[in-house]
Amino acid sequence: MAEDGAPGFEWPVRVYWEDTDAGGIVFYANYLKFFERARTEWLRHLGLGQETLRREDGGFFVVSQTDVRYLKPARLDDLLCVTARLDKTGRGSLVISQEARLQSCRSLLAHATIRIGWVDHASLKPSRIPAHVLTSLHA
Amino acid sequence: MAEDGAPGFEWPVRVYWEDTDAGGIVFYANYLKFFERARTEWLRHLGLGQETLRREDGGFFVVSQTDVRYLKPARLDDLLCVTARLDKTGRGSLVISQEARLQSCRSLLAHATIRIGWVDHASLKPSRIPAHVLTSLHA
Amino acid sequence: MAEDGAPGFEWPVRVYWEDTDAGGIVFYANYLKFFERARTEWLRHLGLGQETLRREDGGFFVVSQTDVRYLKPARLDDLLCVTARLDKTGRGSLVISQEARLQSCRSLLAHATIRIGWVDHASLKPSRIPAHVLTSLHA
Amino acid sequence: MAEDGAPGFEWPVRVYWEDTDAGGIVFYANYLKFFERARTEWLRHLGLGQETLRREDGGFFVVSQTDVRYLKPARLDDLLCVTARLDKTGRGSLVISQEARLQSCRSLLAHATIRIGWVDHASLKPSRIPAHVLTSLHA
Repeated sequence: MAEDGAPGFEWPVRVYWEDTDAGGIVFYANYLKFFERARTEWLRHLGLGQETLRREDGGFFVVSQTDVRYLKPARLDDLLCVTARLDKTGRGSLVISQEARLQSCRSLLAHATIRIGWVDHASLKPSRIPAHVLTSLHA
Repeated sequence: MAEDGAPGFEWPVRVYWEDTDAGGIVFYANYLKFFERARTEWLRHLGLGQETLRREDGGFFVVSQTDVRYLKPARLDDLLCVTARLDKTGRGSLVISQEARLQSCRSLLAHATIRIGWVDHASLKPSRIPAHVLTSLHA
Repeated sequence: MAEDGAPGFEWPVRVYWEDTDAGGIVFYANYLKFFERARTEWLRHLGLGQETLRREDGGFFVVSQTDVRYLKPARLDDLLCVTARLDKTGRGSLVISQEARLQSCRSLLAHATIRIGWVDHASLKPSRIPAHVLTSLHA
Repeated sequence: MAEDGAPGFEWPVRVYWEDTDAGGIVFYANYLKFFERARTEWLRHLGLGQETLRREDGGFFVVSQTDVRYLKPARLDDLLCVTARLDKTGRGSLVISQEARLQSCRSLLAHATIRIGWVDHASLKPSRIPAHVLTSLHA
């Protein structure tokens, strides 16, 4: 999936009051939510609904690392385009590259490298990503 | 707009990790965010983008009252249908009825009565809703 | 506990960037978080830690109703005083009155009536509040 | 301030329902809020209240980079100790090292490197940090 430089999966995110802060712009921590919505929809698009994974595979992805650069502010009512692209695949974790752009002018607002690891539902211990999940990721 | 019992405007809302709490369900305070997204999209649908209102009319709506009943829980990955329906129009405020339902089974999860008042952007003081806004609301 | 008009339990809450919105004030939905922090600390003060209740009594309180009036705005860096006072006790639910005031001038910012119901941890079904919890509430 | 390896400023943070997610643990994005509360209290402790800075110096700090590692989960009712320590000072930005630990066992839950830059309030453009702010930071 897009290890060839393709932009990857895209998901639209609208900025609401809940996302802004007293600086008049999107509160930086909320980009982590936007990135997660895009990752979730990318996984769902690949047939990997997280609630289903938890029920059927007994595990789920947890976020272990988030490196984010905030370049330009977004404002109330802005429509963003948020991307997700698989960068690296390990036995127990994935590294995903993500961007948030203004949908109108494609201006880059923030970009991130996110590492997610597979954990057992009950113990929350790191485990190997189920084979069918890896297969779907590289389909 | 729908003072006749029609369901009013509908807006889909997906439940992500950010919306849930350790009870395994949507954190109740987040329904206020869902209701606001639906109100915002309803207003936008009527030509009343809030950032535009602020810039061109020098004011915006603030929420002055939120009465919510939480009936059934929603969970991760659920797709909700959130409605907005104008109930009452005053000189300076609106009362809006809203519901959140599970999109699949139409089961009612939460309903709310929300009062929003128009305030001047600079002073944050209550003022009269601009005439063109009232016109658009009743178009 | 304070069914006699006493102000009840008080808890300080500082306003951070995360709490504000592009209007320059505290985002209204966040008062529900402030009210919950005060309720939680009030319960803890009575010996009713929620994580302990869940583990030892197999249940927890969920919020079933939140009626809030937002009177005046709070801003970044403001220090609020948030109260919690038991209003009514039922077999399966409690009604709690809460206020948020500016700590400096005691100006009332928002007040709320919150109903919380006891549910079984596993089924999330309403159940009777454990006797020792009721005893602690009225100690 | 603590460029010598001292732990730096410490601030207690309690975990409430609002902070958790359906995995039963603190939602990772919320550590950014915890880190910001500790930075804000550290700055306040140095006489640098942010609302005062905005009013008197016409600017404020914005977050331009957040690199976070999430090591162990925190749960409802946990009491965390969150630190802030100045790592580097530039003309227009600061780099701050932060940790979140369980207060009881000092177990490290998450650590972060956060870059904040000074911007002009009106234009949101990067500017030089006021001299008195730098003086206070190194007092």
